[in-house]
Amino acid sequence: MRITDLETPAVVIDRAKVEANLARAQAYADKHGMKLRPHIKTHKLPLFARRQVELGAIGITCQKLGEAEVMADGGLDDIFIPYNILGEVKLQRLADLHDRIRISVTADSATTVEGYAKHFTDPAHPLPVLIECDTGMGRCGVQSVDEVAALARQISNAPGLSFEGLMTYPPRGKVTEVESWLQQAKSALEAEGLAVNVVSNGGTPDIYSVGGVTTATEYRPGTYIYSDRMQVAFGHGRLEDCALTVLAQVISRPTEDRAVIDAGSKALAADTAPVPGYGHVVGYPEAIITTLSEEHGVIDLTQCSRKPAIGEKLHIIPNHVCVVSNLFDEVNLVEGDEVTETLPVAARGRLS
Amino acid sequence: MRITDLETPAVVIDRAKVEANLARAQAYADKHGMKLRPHIKTHKLPLFARRQVELGAIGITCQKLGEAEVMADGGLDDIFIPYNILGEVKLQRLADLHDRIRISVTADSATTVEGYAKHFTDPAHPLPVLIECDTGMGRCGVQSVDEVAALARQISNAPGLSFEGLMTYPPRGKVTEVESWLQQAKSALEAEGLAVNVVSNGGTPDIYSVGGVTTATEYRPGTYIYSDRMQVAFGHGRLEDCALTVLAQVISRPTEDRAVIDAGSKALAADTAPVPGYGHVVGYPEAIITTLSEEHGVIDLTQCSRKPAIGEKLHIIPNHVCVVSNLFDEVNLVEGDEVTETLPVAARGRLS
Repeated sequence: MRITDLETPAVVIDRAKVEANLARAQAYADKHGMKLRPHIKTHKLPLFARRQVELGAIGITCQKLGEAEVMADGGLDDIFIPYNILGEVKLQRLADLHDRIRISVTADSATTVEGYAKHFTDPAHPLPVLIECDTGMGRCGVQSVDEVAALARQISNAPGLSFEGLMTYPPRGKVTEVESWLQQAKSALEAEGLAVNVVSNGGTPDIYSVGGVTTATEYRPGTYIYSDRMQVAFGHGRLEDCALTVLAQVISRPTEDRAVIDAGSKALAADTAPVPGYGHVVGYPEAIITTLSEEHGVIDLTQCSRKPAIGEKLHIIPNHVCVVSNLFDEVNLVEGDEVTETLPVAARGRLS
Repeated sequence: MRITDLETPAVVIDRAKVEANLARAQAYADKHGMKLRPHIKTHKLPLFARRQVELGAIGITCQKLGEAEVMADGGLDDIFIPYNILGEVKLQRLADLHDRIRISVTADSATTVEGYAKHFTDPAHPLPVLIECDTGMGRCGVQSVDEVAALARQISNAPGLSFEGLMTYPPRGKVTEVESWLQQAKSALEAEGLAVNVVSNGGTPDIYSVGGVTTATEYRPGTYIYSDRMQVAFGHGRLEDCALTVLAQVISRPTEDRAVIDAGSKALAADTAPVPGYGHVVGYPEAIITTLSEEHGVIDLTQCSRKPAIGEKLHIIPNHVCVVSNLFDEVNLVEGDEVTETLPVAARGRLS
């Protein structure tokens, strides 16, 4: 099937661009002695997770247990969940995964560690736990080196847990501050005799400056596999490198300067970027997607010399690609103009 | 099962509040001689669509063919799709629906009408077509009374189509302008001998001022069934009337003034409202959900006298409830503190 024969809106993924994006990041990581542990939130596809590992990744990252369960079913056997897992039901699901594959988690509170310690009690098969550190993002994570040390002791003292190291989701562009935070925490732990095996850093925006965070042993990029308009606006790659587009159809041309497409916030998501509009219209660089309602995207064509007709199908590069993957039940892999495979987005909507 | 035993994040729908919201709107519509044709985009559940009809609605509205197919499967037999349907595949799907149930559509261009006229040719079973009018929203719709008349003639002249009337999605708070637009268009058509059987108006925000648009014969509210924080901010109802909440768990309390919940933009959506934050935290009115990433919601507790603990489950009233329904595979109906039923969101993700 040709791409233009797809019913719209549809997700189109250029396989060659995916390969190039993965290869570029893996080569950079190899050059800097950095292990990659890609975050699957961007693609949610076991096929691409396996490909990331084939190319050199040491394992993958999932944000939620439900995603990890799908990926374990898909053959992935080393998964890191950088999240506090709380409550009897979720801890039992974690235990089930721990029986099947190598799984590691984080904690940023004594409460979380207590839950792990209660459910994991086998010294011969301990659960690896990393401490989440707030290096400036202002989300989860302990706030001080003292708190790191206290939690590390609590983990180390639990027979069924093993203290694995530190994890952070860093603020963008703060490489020096992140390195300083992690280095101080690591030194304090080592001074107490607590080995820090892993320091896990992440985030696609800073992937090509990870050389600056020398304390980190691994990196968790997500968006790099597809890239998106936001990454390009941040200065990472070109629009031509963006592997995922949403194919949409012009359903209305109410005025000379307005087109309406059949992709709204249910297809493109309402995330904004540091550039105007809700996505880049390939082939119409002056077009601006000014407003999205759920099933309509309104495009301002005022600055366009050439204007699309009713019925024309357009490729839209979304502002934020990860959220788009969560909106479609299936995606289409393409080579050139041909659709080669249609895949279910297996880990889509796995919220818990 | 009690609500607090649900795994988080989860959607919780208070059945009694749904009934009260539906009854209030139907009573108002009855009083003003207005027929309701509710938009199912808000709930995407055949159960609630059937309930809306039981209570007096004349049929339902779906934005996409895929939604209409699910609703027809669910027993709904009068569906309006206020959308331009284009292309061979979609027109065939429309024809299949037309064979099964009463289905009507809109057009705002000669191109769209040509497609309908080519696929629907039986004068004994014509496809009802309404003309979409842009009464100020700036989305789809013809721009002038002259355009309305030209399209109405084109529809009337096609043997397999029947000209049904006018449809608009009105700009909020512009009741007088909308009434004037529709009245002029209707008069012009009637002067040509073209009967206008239906004038379809819509949008929950203005539902309780529809009395002002006397030209309209039916109204297509969506959000009114659940209501949300945005509707309350617009002055429609109270937070206590909001029937749908997202149950989320506090997974981290990194600082005295910060809580992090396991519901981010994948659960609450990133839609903003005319009030600060990404949702209302029930029981913590001073709490502000300041940022969402995909799987984390960060709550500022600075103004809170009482603060939630790690592990506590919170009900969040979302800013925009329709998009939340599209993010969850299933929802939980509750009465009091008890979960009475868990339903698949049958029309979720039906994008085409």
